[in-house]
Amino acid sequence: MPGNSFGHLFRISTFGESHGGAVGVVVDGVLPGMELSEEDIQVQLDRRKPGQSSITTPRTEPDTVHILSGIFEGTTTGTSLLLILYNQDARPQAYSEIKDLFRPGHADFTYLKKYGIRDHRGSGRASGRETAARVAAGAVARKILAARGVTVTAYTIQVGTIKCSTRDLSVIEKNPVRACDLNASAEMVKRIEQLRDEGNSIGGIVECCIDGIPPGLGEPVFNKLEAELAHGIMSLGAVKGFEVGSGFGCAAMTGLEHNDPMDKNGFVSNNAGGIIGGISTGEQIVFRAAVKPTSSLSSPQRTIDIHGNEIEIRTEGRHDPCICPRIVPVIEAMSCIVLEDHFKLQASLDR
Amino acid sequence: MPGNSFGHLFRISTFGESHGGAVGVVVDGVLPGMELSEEDIQVQLDRRKPGQSSITTPRTEPDTVHILSGIFEGTTTGTSLLLILYNQDARPQAYSEIKDLFRPGHADFTYLKKYGIRDHRGSGRASGRETAARVAAGAVARKILAARGVTVTAYTIQVGTIKCSTRDLSVIEKNPVRACDLNASAEMVKRIEQLRDEGNSIGGIVECCIDGIPPGLGEPVFNKLEAELAHGIMSLGAVKGFEVGSGFGCAAMTGLEHNDPMDKNGFVSNNAGGIIGGISTGEQIVFRAAVKPTSSLSSPQRTIDIHGNEIEIRTEGRHDPCICPRIVPVIEAMSCIVLEDHFKLQASLDR
Amino acid sequence: MPGNSFGHLFRISTFGESHGGAVGVVVDGVLPGMELSEEDIQVQLDRRKPGQSSITTPRTEPDTVHILSGIFEGTTTGTSLLLILYNQDARPQAYSEIKDLFRPGHADFTYLKKYGIRDHRGSGRASGRETAARVAAGAVARKILAARGVTVTAYTIQVGTIKCSTRDLSVIEKNPVRACDLNASAEMVKRIEQLRDEGNSIGGIVECCIDGIPPGLGEPVFNKLEAELAHGIMSLGAVKGFEVGSGFGCAAMTGLEHNDPMDKNGFVSNNAGGIIGGISTGEQIVFRAAVKPTSSLSSPQRTIDIHGNEIEIRTEGRHDPCICPRIVPVIEAMSCIVLEDHFKLQASLDR
Amino acid sequence: MPGNSFGHLFRISTFGESHGGAVGVVVDGVLPGMELSEEDIQVQLDRRKPGQSSITTPRTEPDTVHILSGIFEGTTTGTSLLLILYNQDARPQAYSEIKDLFRPGHADFTYLKKYGIRDHRGSGRASGRETAARVAAGAVARKILAARGVTVTAYTIQVGTIKCSTRDLSVIEKNPVRACDLNASAEMVKRIEQLRDEGNSIGGIVECCIDGIPPGLGEPVFNKLEAELAHGIMSLGAVKGFEVGSGFGCAAMTGLEHNDPMDKNGFVSNNAGGIIGGISTGEQIVFRAAVKPTSSLSSPQRTIDIHGNEIEIRTEGRHDPCICPRIVPVIEAMSCIVLEDHFKLQASLDR
Repeated sequence: MPGNSFGHLFRISTFGESHGGAVGVVVDGVLPGMELSEEDIQVQLDRRKPGQSSITTPRTEPDTVHILSGIFEGTTTGTSLLLILYNQDARPQAYSEIKDLFRPGHADFTYLKKYGIRDHRGSGRASGRETAARVAAGAVARKILAARGVTVTAYTIQVGTIKCSTRDLSVIEKNPVRACDLNASAEMVKRIEQLRDEGNSIGGIVECCIDGIPPGLGEPVFNKLEAELAHGIMSLGAVKGFEVGSGFGCAAMTGLEHNDPMDKNGFVSNNAGGIIGGISTGEQIVFRAAVKPTSSLSSPQRTIDIHGNEIEIRTEGRHDPCICPRIVPVIEAMSCIVLEDHFKLQASLDR
Repeated sequence: MPGNSFGHLFRISTFGESHGGAVGVVVDGVLPGMELSEEDIQVQLDRRKPGQSSITTPRTEPDTVHILSGIFEGTTTGTSLLLILYNQDARPQAYSEIKDLFRPGHADFTYLKKYGIRDHRGSGRASGRETAARVAAGAVARKILAARGVTVTAYTIQVGTIKCSTRDLSVIEKNPVRACDLNASAEMVKRIEQLRDEGNSIGGIVECCIDGIPPGLGEPVFNKLEAELAHGIMSLGAVKGFEVGSGFGCAAMTGLEHNDPMDKNGFVSNNAGGIIGGISTGEQIVFRAAVKPTSSLSSPQRTIDIHGNEIEIRTEGRHDPCICPRIVPVIEAMSCIVLEDHFKLQASLDR
Repeated sequence: MPGNSFGHLFRISTFGESHGGAVGVVVDGVLPGMELSEEDIQVQLDRRKPGQSSITTPRTEPDTVHILSGIFEGTTTGTSLLLILYNQDARPQAYSEIKDLFRPGHADFTYLKKYGIRDHRGSGRASGRETAARVAAGAVARKILAARGVTVTAYTIQVGTIKCSTRDLSVIEKNPVRACDLNASAEMVKRIEQLRDEGNSIGGIVECCIDGIPPGLGEPVFNKLEAELAHGIMSLGAVKGFEVGSGFGCAAMTGLEHNDPMDKNGFVSNNAGGIIGGISTGEQIVFRAAVKPTSSLSSPQRTIDIHGNEIEIRTEGRHDPCICPRIVPVIEAMSCIVLEDHFKLQASLDR
Repeated sequence: MPGNSFGHLFRISTFGESHGGAVGVVVDGVLPGMELSEEDIQVQLDRRKPGQSSITTPRTEPDTVHILSGIFEGTTTGTSLLLILYNQDARPQAYSEIKDLFRPGHADFTYLKKYGIRDHRGSGRASGRETAARVAAGAVARKILAARGVTVTAYTIQVGTIKCSTRDLSVIEKNPVRACDLNASAEMVKRIEQLRDEGNSIGGIVECCIDGIPPGLGEPVFNKLEAELAHGIMSLGAVKGFEVGSGFGCAAMTGLEHNDPMDKNGFVSNNAGGIIGGISTGEQIVFRAAVKPTSSLSSPQRTIDIHGNEIEIRTEGRHDPCICPRIVPVIEAMSCIVLEDHFKLQASLDR
């Protein structure tokens, strides 16, 4: 299948480029009979939108969502939703200087090789702006999941070499990094600002925890819950790694350390991260994503143009020096989409 | 979709339990007109089969493959292949003692919760034996890929805390851990044997490198090449993490360090791991998988039975003390399946 | 899958209700590097739009299409297109009188049973207006197919008991019924106008012929070319039957009559309708669709309300007395979508 | 997707050629916890198998089914079933004479054009024998549907120009044509035997009626219930047409005649054939399929060989002179598969 759709029964099909007319998504498989307003979606988009703080890009897209179908008198009908965000601050001409250059870390070279044509305006479909559509669709899934008793919370746990030493979820929305540790957050902000001023950027790690999933969710063999979460999260352009539960730490563990014993109260530990054999255990689902440093830098970098000439490039655009704060709601959105899809798959099994 | 199929245009549908009649796979989307013999497949199955060395389970499944369709006079016809392995050494009764117990680290509890029924004979579909079907299908993809000039090689780089310090691919099949460093391998074997004798097991990390992929392979947005590789690899029951290129190491890197510059000879570095924006760069694709320690242990562990009673369990079966050596061909197989699928997706674009 | 998407590699996802904000479609899998303008699409929408003649509804939707993504400098990029038609002449209040009634022949009852909720404004997703999105997407496929040398032409061959006795394709766009016989067309118009004036409507048969398909297109077994055409055409709300080549006439034929012999110039006859074993023969593909009479009638009809009370209903809306003329471009569009999809499937096989 | 799979949530993947090692199917999405035996499946295969009467081929395939996975202690586990029928009476050498000829009405030419290779032994995947796998999978769906209160019954209503004048379902299994009218059946047998003796064959029409479907089943827009039934039925190689309810007869009807009024007891008539807007009404679902005359004839026919030389061909194999009697259980099977799939789709919507 061409790659612009995701999900089985809760299925999204996205469209749009950073500097075209609009970005958006068709959402199919929505629970009928649920109240749904643009505000339900806007609140999540506002968490992703640019210009939220000193450490995010000053590009000023209001990212206002419009629901153009699938709603009748404020209620979902069960038919497909169109969620659309018209582009306001598109400046395609800002990219004319780099139209023949391959920006390091960007998909310029690979898209040209794939399609034989390149939309140089802000990366086309490879733009981070594409994720606004995911957040919009995820907000719909999130509302359905809330009614199922499920909460999904992501947060930054590492920026550069600075790591959170606590998991205080109450502070996530109170610091510009969306970290779960205010002390670490202060250091992170300092480090990010320093690198931004140097025309550089920095990577990080985002963790996501999911509560309220009953045991038994997930499909066997190829559509294991962690496999579909990995698919969804690794489909974010900035993500280079995914791990669940013990993750890469499992390599250094013995079976006796890693196995989660059970007693009459349930699982005693959670190295599994809430999923065994691809199916939820009923414990908290925990995963982490490695987020690469922003590719667009105002520092000079070596590259070539489409004719193979070597050249120095600076990306003067408006970019985030660290992707973590704004990828947090995107990771939550993809998780919500996968989970709602699996609730529907499980419902199809039950009778 | 129910989870027993994988792939878009090169598509596999698997079946079979460890202790039922057979395991196997229907392979659809096979290139017509290619010579294909059972021997082509058997050679890969032999790399996965039990009993290869002192550090693998002594279960003696010959894992002999039969091709029952899709072949005419030794040549693929383009129609679906049935690859089947009849079970020989099934001992369902060996599991009768644990039929009411939830083995720690196993999917016993989650399958019961999902399906309301449990096939206790060696984990049913959650058995590692399910991966024989993947290896069989992967061998078909591998042969097609070889004709495209693609090679896929996986190997163990870490067991417990012991890490390979070189990447000598010539030694992989010459040591029982399938490590890429003979010195490390000797230590690894010692450690694995020690833990085996203690009734314990150990985790590790497997790396996979893929050569010969032209630039331009992979789909945008949701079906990025790394997302589909992650899906395939994370669908292996023992895998807890996946990373590509710089992987989790990207968190501590700056953009200037992480971006791969280009000069007239192409990419100067390969932190991307051969994929940018979901599409291949033409450089080597490199990813790693975190492999958990084997769950089945002969040491006593705490668990409960289906009635909630606490009990001590020992799994006296025949199990590998480290999964890495035998998961190497499985990881290669899943990679081959994903890659051949994407070659076909790309071909569908080209005209 | 929820039902708002269609196709494998050329894949469309539609949205929108007759009396909501917009109708439209995301088109994925579009050939990159092709010139495409809104005019290319508009010309087909104009063939479907209301108000074209005395025998079509006077509802005045201009049905102006906007392409909001997937195009760069007038050329397709290979990424997903959003084609959107904002609703202009929506009059949701016009339906308030019938909001608790089940209109005979309409999906009011079945949608309520399925979703537990009903969007009574002009049938919601069951509205014929939904087909505008199909025509828009089909126009894109048609342009690609034209470059492949394929033409798709549908036309009315029967209205009520009046049948065309010739197949003069040059007159199709020159008569309001889109019949292939001007004499028959004149009679058909008379009959349609008579029934319209009586508050009644009439059915018909539309034929479609496809030229330029090379031999070898179509997939074996379940995705036979005629099966996918049947799926696409039978997914039109007004279509009650589909037949290819000899169609239902084959029942009365012997094998010697029905088999198409071959000589050195190829097939001598074409009872197959251009497809054998699901795969194109290279001959003209010919199929026919049975089109039911319009359900909305201004004549009084018996029905019940949602409480089960018997009541008389008249549908005073603005409706076509015969669906044939306006379904012609829709049938062509669905054919184009299926065929372009199969060209891509075949391309995926070829190397 | 390559064409060897069908269905969304109840999904089958078939394999096998008439003269290879086996034919069979992987069935995914099976309700867990249901008793299922090989006998449940065999009883349906016996209705399809050759050699049942004087008017079916004397080829003697016992068509014995084996269930090799997905069952534990006689009960479905919810994981994928392998149903396999080993070929017994394969005589590949019987086809050596025609290996370079294109048999009229057969897919020899089209398969060669598609794949560039031809399995000439009994048509390969285009063989009617492929439908045994459908019947096996359909028997599983049928058993699940029976528990849901659904019955599916097909029968011959026309052979040549001989039509049934009653619908007596009690006689279907008591006459070799599986007609619903014993008088007509006697005439049909006479006509079939006459044509068989002349080395000829004859077409017919099969009708299928489905009882017990609740209102609300079916998906909107593209996956309408009748569209998916049409897809399934038109994917049978011998079927040239499909119609539901009024079918092609709707062309000559007015809206007042065609619309099914409702009164307090429900629908007064059933021109819809049990489906409106793609969704079931709760009335009986009725459809018909046009079945072409058998292509294999012992009479001489004109054709060419692969080099383009004109030649006369006789197919001396063992073939049915009329396909209707043996396609009846196949049509039922495909209906069961579509319906069970839609029950699961609807279940996924309900919560």
